[in-house]
Amino acid sequence: MPEAYLKGLEEIAGTDPENGPLFVEELKRVSPDFAEYFVGFAFGKIHARTILDPKVKELVAIASLIALGDGKSHLRLRILGAVRAGCSKEEIIEVIIQSVVYVGFTRAMVALNIVREVFEDHDKSGSDGSAEPPTSPPST
Amino acid sequence: MPEAYLKGLEEIAGTDPENGPLFVEELKRVSPDFAEYFVGFAFGKIHARTILDPKVKELVAIASLIALGDGKSHLRLRILGAVRAGCSKEEIIEVIIQSVVYVGFTRAMVALNIVREVFEDHDKSGSDGSAEPPTSPPST
Amino acid sequence: MPEAYLKGLEEIAGTDPENGPLFVEELKRVSPDFAEYFVGFAFGKIHARTILDPKVKELVAIASLIALGDGKSHLRLRILGAVRAGCSKEEIIEVIIQSVVYVGFTRAMVALNIVREVFEDHDKSGSDGSAEPPTSPPST
Amino acid sequence: MPEAYLKGLEEIAGTDPENGPLFVEELKRVSPDFAEYFVGFAFGKIHARTILDPKVKELVAIASLIALGDGKSHLRLRILGAVRAGCSKEEIIEVIIQSVVYVGFTRAMVALNIVREVFEDHDKSGSDGSAEPPTSPPST
Amino acid sequence: MPEAYLKGLEEIAGTDPENGPLFVEELKRVSPDFAEYFVGFAFGKIHARTILDPKVKELVAIASLIALGDGKSHLRLRILGAVRAGCSKEEIIEVIIQSVVYVGFTRAMVALNIVREVFEDHDKSGSDGSAEPPTSPPST
Amino acid sequence: MPEAYLKGLEEIAGTDPENGPLFVEELKRVSPDFAEYFVGFAFGKIHARTILDPKVKELVAIASLIALGDGKSHLRLRILGAVRAGCSKEEIIEVIIQSVVYVGFTRAMVALNIVREVFEDHDKSGSDGSAEPPTSPPST
Repeated sequence: MPEAYLKGLEEIAGTDPENGPLFVEELKRVSPDFAEYFVGFAFGKIHARTILDPKVKELVAIASLIALGDGKSHLRLRILGAVRAGCSKEEIIEVIIQSVVYVGFTRAMVALNIVREVFEDHDKSGSDGSAEPPTSPPST
Repeated sequence: MPEAYLKGLEEIAGTDPENGPLFVEELKRVSPDFAEYFVGFAFGKIHARTILDPKVKELVAIASLIALGDGKSHLRLRILGAVRAGCSKEEIIEVIIQSVVYVGFTRAMVALNIVREVFEDHDKSGSDGSAEPPTSPPST
Repeated sequence: MPEAYLKGLEEIAGTDPENGPLFVEELKRVSPDFAEYFVGFAFGKIHARTILDPKVKELVAIASLIALGDGKSHLRLRILGAVRAGCSKEEIIEVIIQSVVYVGFTRAMVALNIVREVFEDHDKSGSDGSAEPPTSPPST
Repeated sequence: MPEAYLKGLEEIAGTDPENGPLFVEELKRVSPDFAEYFVGFAFGKIHARTILDPKVKELVAIASLIALGDGKSHLRLRILGAVRAGCSKEEIIEVIIQSVVYVGFTRAMVALNIVREVFEDHDKSGSDGSAEPPTSPPST
Repeated sequence: MPEAYLKGLEEIAGTDPENGPLFVEELKRVSPDFAEYFVGFAFGKIHARTILDPKVKELVAIASLIALGDGKSHLRLRILGAVRAGCSKEEIIEVIIQSVVYVGFTRAMVALNIVREVFEDHDKSGSDGSAEPPTSPPST
Repeated sequence: MPEAYLKGLEEIAGTDPENGPLFVEELKRVSPDFAEYFVGFAFGKIHARTILDPKVKELVAIASLIALGDGKSHLRLRILGAVRAGCSKEEIIEVIIQSVVYVGFTRAMVALNIVREVFEDHDKSGSDGSAEPPTSPPST
């Protein structure tokens, strides 16, 4: 699915222009087929959908990943995506607070700590927004 | 926390005016303390927060519950809440579609089936919106 | 492991003297090996341990099953075990209340509903304790 | 993705020739887009892959769904798929037994009960294999 | 809820007098509202309850967190709480052993490793109990 | 159960001849009873079963652990076991790809990263297969 794949690459670059493309290259080295599905389906088909407002789409993704409980790298990536989409730190933390009802304090605190790390990196890298915190390859 | 409790009752009635208050009465018979926390904290403190738009708050809750995977009664309740808050069926289904990336097709299909049931009940009960589908006490 | 198996049968009969042995027979028809492990290891080796007070052992089991989130039949069985071991309804509900912090209201409410059902059955079957609520085979 | 979609329909019919196509029709009524992804991606792209032996592919799917813990309809569907692919009841139960180590007895017993139900239905419907047990739409 | 908040601070100091208050300060910097709920509700309302014996309350919490599977920092914190409440290492490990039945060996081994680490730190810091192992902020 | 224990030790050595026995020694220092169950039951009784082909048994274990989502050390151990049993890297990655349908991309990517690490270690340690990558004690 070449068209969906190109769309997916574009979506990934939109989430994290510096590290997103590198991440895809690394994924391709491990498994070209998995990379094709991740780029072409997860991003090119699903994340590229436009029914939800981009900010809402990111907040919904964050809620999913808080509740899932593992997959911290993926949560970090989507928090970056939320910042890029224009979500405020306050809105992202609000998703964590709402999730306390559904999944408890334990998973909420894991997420809160990731938000803290992302914004500490973000603040360190300057306020011009040009240098996003590095997204490492999926290590959790 | 009497103030938070009253606020919580109001929130619950706003989600499901017919069955919400009955549900609280039943919860109180099983455990008055649990009912107090559910009404006064979960609804009166957390769900009553206004940082997120009411519709977004409901979509985020739905995403949490899809990912959690069990707790179908709670998911049903929040789908009703989403409808009341003005979310369209299309937006609710979109949350399910987005969640495929994070939690897979299995949990997404469970959620899709609940959405189908809620809207079938809803459609049966007339288009004037006066009669919501009944919310049963938490049985899953 | 014949000794552990006999010990396990005894433990199961102690949890639910009427339905426990029937349940084992049914399990044996589906998979004799699985039944052997369930009786001989899960009950004969693990549940038969005596380091924790029997009541505490049951409350800890209930906490595990609330957090696991599925496996409602198993939770029902252990609530019966807790009642047999002498735990009060109040203590069992307290475990649910404590679990709200760790796993949220959603899973806690699922558990609360099972407690309600078990005690409704229990109350119906008379106060002499001779007739426990039926334990059905593992259907969830 | 028309080609993948056709491939997916074929895979679904191969799993459950009688009820599979009906299930897709129902899914399309609830959400045509979700149905497209389910048929075209989950079945047409992923399940259609041929690196693993068909029997192994089904046993691996069953292991995933046992561990996931919810999604019983999906597990039932894949058990049917395993039977169609030529897996014996003994092999399917063996996956459940192996999973005890990784996910415990609770989820293993849920799965064992589903296997029991599927094979009871299967045995009732005759030994010529022409009438598979009905697959209901995803209700859990 | 000022009274519940003060009660919560006291509970946290009781769990970990050196690092607990620092942890709350850090939480407040990330999200004052989340900190308020964590201190005032999770500790001030729920953990402060006295229906269960303090030791039992801690063992039940540990069982919840083993079964949840993620949230290792929270599990570490509650193991410290269990030690402070007077639980022996043997009792804490017994909860892990019991949980094997419900959640399997995988999650049990994760918990066992955390217990090992906590007690290694504890043993290093001297036998007078004055220096507890440091509780780091929620990093998992 | 001395016979099952010996069988279990043999199975563990077969999975990881260098580090497996060390791991058991370490487990015994933390909890001799837990070590006995892990060796004697998990390996000596369950993993020692021969109904499934050894390669299939390992692929099924990997599928369980991907879906469980936590327990990365255990997943790493079973990937090593799969390599020893003769599974190719391609087959192991195929299990991850199949699991995308059931558990989503998030958990699949966590697993893919572990596979990458195991094979990088493996490739570094030479192609004669004599030096397996070290298995660390269960730390996640």
